[in-house]
Amino acid sequence: MKLVIVGGVAGGASAAARARRLSEDAEIVVLERGPDVSFANCGLPYYVGGEIAPRDKLLVTTPQRLRERFRLDVRTRSSVEAIDRQGKKVRVKELDTGREYEETYDALILAPGAAPLRPPIPGIESPHVLTLRNLGDVDRIKSHVDAGAKRVVVVGAGFIGLELAENFVKRGVETTVVELQTQVLPPLDPEMTVPIVEALTSRGVRVILDDSADAFAPADDGVSVTLKSGGVLAADLVILGVGVRPENGLAVAAGLEVGPRGGIRVSDTMQTSDPAIWAVGDAVEIRDVVTGAAAQVPLAGPANRQGRIAAAAILRNAARTPNRYRGTQGTAIVGVFDRVAAITGASEKVLARAATPYRKVYVHPADHAGYYPGAEQMSLKLLFAPDTGRVLGVQAVGGKGVDKRIDVIAVAIQAGMTVFDLEEMELCYAPQFGSAKDPVNMAGFVAAGLVRGDHPQADMTTALDGPPDDGTILLDVRTPQEFSEGHLPRAQNIPLDDLRNRLAELPRDRRILAYCQVGMRGYIATRILLQKGFDVANLGGGYKTSLLLRAARPQG
Amino acid sequence: MKLVIVGGVAGGASAAARARRLSEDAEIVVLERGPDVSFANCGLPYYVGGEIAPRDKLLVTTPQRLRERFRLDVRTRSSVEAIDRQGKKVRVKELDTGREYEETYDALILAPGAAPLRPPIPGIESPHVLTLRNLGDVDRIKSHVDAGAKRVVVVGAGFIGLELAENFVKRGVETTVVELQTQVLPPLDPEMTVPIVEALTSRGVRVILDDSADAFAPADDGVSVTLKSGGVLAADLVILGVGVRPENGLAVAAGLEVGPRGGIRVSDTMQTSDPAIWAVGDAVEIRDVVTGAAAQVPLAGPANRQGRIAAAAILRNAARTPNRYRGTQGTAIVGVFDRVAAITGASEKVLARAATPYRKVYVHPADHAGYYPGAEQMSLKLLFAPDTGRVLGVQAVGGKGVDKRIDVIAVAIQAGMTVFDLEEMELCYAPQFGSAKDPVNMAGFVAAGLVRGDHPQADMTTALDGPPDDGTILLDVRTPQEFSEGHLPRAQNIPLDDLRNRLAELPRDRRILAYCQVGMRGYIATRILLQKGFDVANLGGGYKTSLLLRAARPQG
Repeated sequence: MKLVIVGGVAGGASAAARARRLSEDAEIVVLERGPDVSFANCGLPYYVGGEIAPRDKLLVTTPQRLRERFRLDVRTRSSVEAIDRQGKKVRVKELDTGREYEETYDALILAPGAAPLRPPIPGIESPHVLTLRNLGDVDRIKSHVDAGAKRVVVVGAGFIGLELAENFVKRGVETTVVELQTQVLPPLDPEMTVPIVEALTSRGVRVILDDSADAFAPADDGVSVTLKSGGVLAADLVILGVGVRPENGLAVAAGLEVGPRGGIRVSDTMQTSDPAIWAVGDAVEIRDVVTGAAAQVPLAGPANRQGRIAAAAILRNAARTPNRYRGTQGTAIVGVFDRVAAITGASEKVLARAATPYRKVYVHPADHAGYYPGAEQMSLKLLFAPDTGRVLGVQAVGGKGVDKRIDVIAVAIQAGMTVFDLEEMELCYAPQFGSAKDPVNMAGFVAAGLVRGDHPQADMTTALDGPPDDGTILLDVRTPQEFSEGHLPRAQNIPLDDLRNRLAELPRDRRILAYCQVGMRGYIATRILLQKGFDVANLGGGYKTSLLLRAARPQG
Repeated sequence: MKLVIVGGVAGGASAAARARRLSEDAEIVVLERGPDVSFANCGLPYYVGGEIAPRDKLLVTTPQRLRERFRLDVRTRSSVEAIDRQGKKVRVKELDTGREYEETYDALILAPGAAPLRPPIPGIESPHVLTLRNLGDVDRIKSHVDAGAKRVVVVGAGFIGLELAENFVKRGVETTVVELQTQVLPPLDPEMTVPIVEALTSRGVRVILDDSADAFAPADDGVSVTLKSGGVLAADLVILGVGVRPENGLAVAAGLEVGPRGGIRVSDTMQTSDPAIWAVGDAVEIRDVVTGAAAQVPLAGPANRQGRIAAAAILRNAARTPNRYRGTQGTAIVGVFDRVAAITGASEKVLARAATPYRKVYVHPADHAGYYPGAEQMSLKLLFAPDTGRVLGVQAVGGKGVDKRIDVIAVAIQAGMTVFDLEEMELCYAPQFGSAKDPVNMAGFVAAGLVRGDHPQADMTTALDGPPDDGTILLDVRTPQEFSEGHLPRAQNIPLDDLRNRLAELPRDRRILAYCQVGMRGYIATRILLQKGFDVANLGGGYKTSLLLRAARPQG
């Protein structure tokens, strides 16, 4: 068996190492266009900021190490130019010598990755307009900063763009982020990104939404960025982080099937439309396990697992339980200064776009018991099927403990669990680590109550500007102190603990929308009024949620 | 509907609040023997140490608050003396006045909790020998420390005992822990507690295992503790933390069914053998979801959920989806100084005792990507069914991130997932939060490889004293440097990267047990040798595991 692997970073390196573990006899050739294999992609922004140093920390492994430990034939600076499927061979070009040669294969794994998009913006060829993909890129970016770059514009407020912004700030660089959409972190719903924007702006980052770079022009020792809105930003350096496209050139030229967005089509063992060719990593099209839609997810975890699966499919005794790639659920996390935002499963906008029925709840619990010092509040948004309660997605933003709750619910989604299962989860509790009712349980309680029909809930978006014009009453059940510090427009205040004695103040012929700070007292008020015969619903997630939703509304 | 609840702390308070939310019309009477309701049991040790202050932080709620918000008839210092099942009434004694009266009920919930064991040890009635259950207890303990107690003996090295030990140390008190078993934290397997003992002893705690208090005798201003081993410890204060027994007196006297260990028998809606009586919390017998065995779990999370379930069973329209208590999986966590130990599901000793077939793997990954600063190593032990790979239990000990991995696998156990599911989990990865191959994935990879038969593994316990006498060879595949710093007795060193060139040094007619530091290189070596025709197995978990196992062996 001769296995040739195109690409030696995440998926390719994982495939190569696993292939060797499965077969001492296989001939395994890794052809990597760049000078490095298996580097720490996800660490690159932190090398710019100095959090990760020295540079060789970024090298997860080296060609030398792969040769010694796994007896792999690793050839860097070796670009595969074409695949001859008929002849089962690839044409390789040595980038340093220009020499070309052919390499035959019994099985071929494509792990070419994805390349940063460079849209055809005038002036984009400027040496001051960079993208970030590999060590060479990060060296260029860092050398600009080391050389004294004072003003950076990051175009694109995705995960990597914001990580870079944080690290520029840590280096004392004046940083502006420009994003085409009306929110940062486009995979999340807009209101869940509000605390991230606050973290950025409080550290001096200028965040410009709903705008884009229309042109780059040379300026003294830098570049001038003209925005679509007409503004002009002066920068020593521009980073483009506006997405990636699968490196499918080889696959397309060889006639392999690709999806509409360019991802190489693969089976659940990562086999392409040619049974002798597999593909893994950022270049492949996979299935979203929640929505069933085709997806391309440029993330290291899936790439590594796909590499393992492809190697096993090629080299393991086929009679044994095969590993199968089950698709992605889009789990992603980002830390921005002291804030953390994360998601797994579908967002509300994805569900709405697909016309998938869903319900949602917001909770704002602390990461651990409130009576123990250092508790940090998080906001958690849970999406689930209205009928069965199946968990469809979750997002959280806060500080400590966000990653844990997203991971816990990621497993629930993987297992096809429901909100009733969230209610019953038995999670770690000591005061430093959680609560007797963990945030995950809390979200489950609220959501399960909705599915069971225990309490009607209304969507806070309907009340941001005050009560709907149909005579609806907004009832704020917080304390007068809380009410005085801010409330929904034209809301009436009856504190929860007075409510039973003041029912006469409320009309029985009008709809009442109750709310509190985070949803709990509003829920109790709703239960009271419901049983007393009022037409009432709780504005889920409370005033805290309204602040997020309001801040997330597109300006102008 | 008149609902009477006996006990107003975790399960009782949860039941009462939920009952009111479900029914405005129900009459709800909460009878609590103590002066407080719903206090932060799990915070008590940290109040002694000063981490939690002021004292009212420990009051999760107050009788006043419960009256105002939930219109509950809360009566503290009110002891229920007997249940008249026939007449559906309880006899109540007002502890402050001595007055007795009867209270009828339509439904009764028993939430009496569990009481600390006070074994019949001579001298145990000393005012210097205390237990910890409620605020009165913690006040007594704290006042001893505030008054200058210099030496404390904690009898019992369970979760609360060790939390107390930490807090005594923080107050500058010389602390000794005495434990009957040969390990601390008896729910865990012994080797997983080694780092906890190290944390204790490194902070000056004296840990005495395999010993117990035989007698207490008055000494100048304190107490003298005579150990079974013959030693004598002088102490200003002794804390007994040797377990709890369910407060089943009322239930037993009323003829309700109790289990062999005294737990009140309940259905999955927490109904006792009397259909008008429910029971929740530390006093009930529940089912262990992994082993199926009867269990009593004195933990706040289950108590709260059981309270909710009982209230719903009593007050909700029975036609709606009922909540059901599914049993416990024994999720528990403890922080001891900078170390964290946690468990969910069955331990190895529980599985061995029940003769349940299992396999195990140890991994020692970092909590987040090694290339990002601050990564902390943890040790994780995964137990699973040999045939199906179903996850049976997991324990971890380390620092940051232990709670997350236990919670993630807790959900996997709840969902009945297998080690193949752990392999494919898509968890949060950014360098601060995890790794492309998360510790959970890593454990899954190793375990799934075992179930698939990809690599034979031998138990490290068989090699702690050197190779078995049958001619077996111990092969250490670490570097000469690592080997020189410590290795298994009579092991032979061939570094992994030299192995393929030095196969001639290994006999083909003898069994070879390979090992490295944490198991990964040993696995690769095993795969190489296996394919070259050697009789080989990997000593799972590597030298790091051997150090834990060796340190956990009972002394003498």
